[in-house]
Amino acid sequence: MPVAPAGGAPRVTDADLDAFRLARGFTTASTACGLKASGRPDLLWVVADAPCAAAGVFTTNRVAAAPVLLDREHLSRAKGRIRAVIANSGCANSVTGERGMDDARRTATLGAQVLGVAAEQVLVLSTGVIGVFLDMDRIVRGIATLASSAADHGAGDSARAITTTDTVPKIASADVSLGGGTIRVAGFAKGAGMIHPDMATMLAVITTDARVEPGRLDRALRAATARSFNRISVDGDMSTNDTVLVLASGAAGVTVDDTTQAAFEQALTGVCAALARQIARDGEGATRLVELRVTGAADEPQAHQVGDAIACSPLVKTAIHGNDPNWGRILAAAGYSGAAIEPSRVRLWFGPDDEVQLLDRGLPVAFDRVRASELLCRDPAVIRLDLGLGGADATVWTCDLSAEYVRVNAEYTT
Amino acid sequence: MPVAPAGGAPRVTDADLDAFRLARGFTTASTACGLKASGRPDLLWVVADAPCAAAGVFTTNRVAAAPVLLDREHLSRAKGRIRAVIANSGCANSVTGERGMDDARRTATLGAQVLGVAAEQVLVLSTGVIGVFLDMDRIVRGIATLASSAADHGAGDSARAITTTDTVPKIASADVSLGGGTIRVAGFAKGAGMIHPDMATMLAVITTDARVEPGRLDRALRAATARSFNRISVDGDMSTNDTVLVLASGAAGVTVDDTTQAAFEQALTGVCAALARQIARDGEGATRLVELRVTGAADEPQAHQVGDAIACSPLVKTAIHGNDPNWGRILAAAGYSGAAIEPSRVRLWFGPDDEVQLLDRGLPVAFDRVRASELLCRDPAVIRLDLGLGGADATVWTCDLSAEYVRVNAEYTT
Repeated sequence: MPVAPAGGAPRVTDADLDAFRLARGFTTASTACGLKASGRPDLLWVVADAPCAAAGVFTTNRVAAAPVLLDREHLSRAKGRIRAVIANSGCANSVTGERGMDDARRTATLGAQVLGVAAEQVLVLSTGVIGVFLDMDRIVRGIATLASSAADHGAGDSARAITTTDTVPKIASADVSLGGGTIRVAGFAKGAGMIHPDMATMLAVITTDARVEPGRLDRALRAATARSFNRISVDGDMSTNDTVLVLASGAAGVTVDDTTQAAFEQALTGVCAALARQIARDGEGATRLVELRVTGAADEPQAHQVGDAIACSPLVKTAIHGNDPNWGRILAAAGYSGAAIEPSRVRLWFGPDDEVQLLDRGLPVAFDRVRASELLCRDPAVIRLDLGLGGADATVWTCDLSAEYVRVNAEYTT
Repeated sequence: MPVAPAGGAPRVTDADLDAFRLARGFTTASTACGLKASGRPDLLWVVADAPCAAAGVFTTNRVAAAPVLLDREHLSRAKGRIRAVIANSGCANSVTGERGMDDARRTATLGAQVLGVAAEQVLVLSTGVIGVFLDMDRIVRGIATLASSAADHGAGDSARAITTTDTVPKIASADVSLGGGTIRVAGFAKGAGMIHPDMATMLAVITTDARVEPGRLDRALRAATARSFNRISVDGDMSTNDTVLVLASGAAGVTVDDTTQAAFEQALTGVCAALARQIARDGEGATRLVELRVTGAADEPQAHQVGDAIACSPLVKTAIHGNDPNWGRILAAAGYSGAAIEPSRVRLWFGPDDEVQLLDRGLPVAFDRVRASELLCRDPAVIRLDLGLGGADATVWTCDLSAEYVRVNAEYTT
């Protein structure tokens, strides 16, 4: 599957999932070990053929889940020698105290034993309900199943196994000419609720067959995350488990160095942004992707701040859901974002090509309401707010807010 | 009508509204001038018999509406000699540029002319759709109607006239023995959406017949607002028009001084908090008030910060709507609030008397799910989160998030 084009978020099809492969040097397998009441697949691993470089970005939530605490520890000890990632859905192993830490550690150890590697070479991810202990009997049986299964299940099945309230799995890849060869960056992600852009959001596992030294990989991941996963919001709630991992096998025989770092970062950012848009599009109850382009800001952090406030505004998101060009709500959100705003300089448009202007230098413009409403109906709905203060831009993705979001979330644990 | 008891938010009845009176020294009148398409009352004034002390707290939104800018100017010039407040619903006069400022100024001037006072002695308030110019022909006719009407309409009618998407008017009063006499504090407010606790929120006009020097009145209002209007959230959206005004006529013959300042502040805080709870309870689509008690914080700002994050979490609010004791969402919100959190010290209860404990020192407690669900069903639903870090507390009010919120806001302007 190609990286989704900028601004778009095509729905992943079963054919896409069947054809999906990770980068060379990695295999993956998944199973249903019984953590999900539905009996659907809920456990997977990604295994590297040899020790590989890895980097991670984690939630900044002070209530960090056990897997987040464990992965930070393992990455600091073995970031150049990682062998596997084990991920489960159906249980977040968060707010579970020492027992939760023991369970996360035991999961890594079990995986390490069957793979014949050290425990610190295994990373773990969990997603699901908070405050429930991991059923370790099921994890034990599940890991045994993974170990005895065919070496390389379809990566699409792993993308399915990591989902919770997602309506579609999220996958993205890019094959890029780099350093005289071709490298692949390919990953999957999950996330539909508790999505808010501040450091890492949701879970994602990305593989590449480029050879990348751990420090360089870490820098590339931070740069890519800042412009992808940290630019989306579904509901403003930041998870306790958010993690993005990238593993580099080197199987392509191409080493990323100073001359190719920018190209590698661009490929990684493209894959991360494609996954991020798929998450925003699949926001709980969402009917469309919303792309907010903030331009003319004094600097990029402020552009991001304005986009973030608009992306989190329930009033903006319900108006979009209702195809209602109630642009005052966009201005109000920009105004309380905390960024510098000079109302008399602000301009606003709807549409991917700035088709309908609604505000010109702080004053309402008479506009075609029917056409403006049609543009909000699009998937993605594109909105551009120009602050008229400088040359910095940021694009932020969110989704509309529907009654279905409330239904999904009023009924999740019961 | 008595001040609503702590934790409660009784619905205001028509009988309450009919019986409602402002403090001595003030009259009020209202009319339907045609700003609301429904033809309902949409213009009111509160007139002081003589020049009076006044104080205001305003939105911190950088896109501040024209009336906010004008009132700041008028208060700085005439805060000891204010004579009237003119308020309209149906149009926010926000994001309307210079023309909006001219319209706000002209409204004050028209009021001043019919009352025979200086323009700077008149404050104005507007609420409604953003980005629409005030229909000044209607304002002119409306002010003429107010001037020719009986001196003192019921204050309940004025409380009705200031509403927009509110389902009930908000009124509160307190009669307090103070300094050898009895003073009254009585006011009304509007607000159901675009409600977020950061400085003033929504519109409120509060009168008192105590004599209070303007600087003292200002301090009292800031203290009262910090623990009332700044402690509520409906949707996390901060309006461009938020304003709380207090006017002190002195008609009670009682002067607030250093010895009675605390008692006056307490009375004012009580009235503000009663209005604030009524606003939170009437949040768009809400079915119940939610009272979040954060205790054991290192300091009060951090207690507020934690309560605020929980109050703004769509996941917490939808879970409450679904009577779902999904407490992990409460912990996740506390964790990303930015306040100090030590997960292993946190405890959580539902119910006004801490009836059901869900979390003890960071670990899940086996609890009666049916009873926990019943307690979330209550109006108000009471939740206490103890951080175990210190002795500071804060109570924050919000409401549940229902599909009706989405319906109301997807259809507001169209």
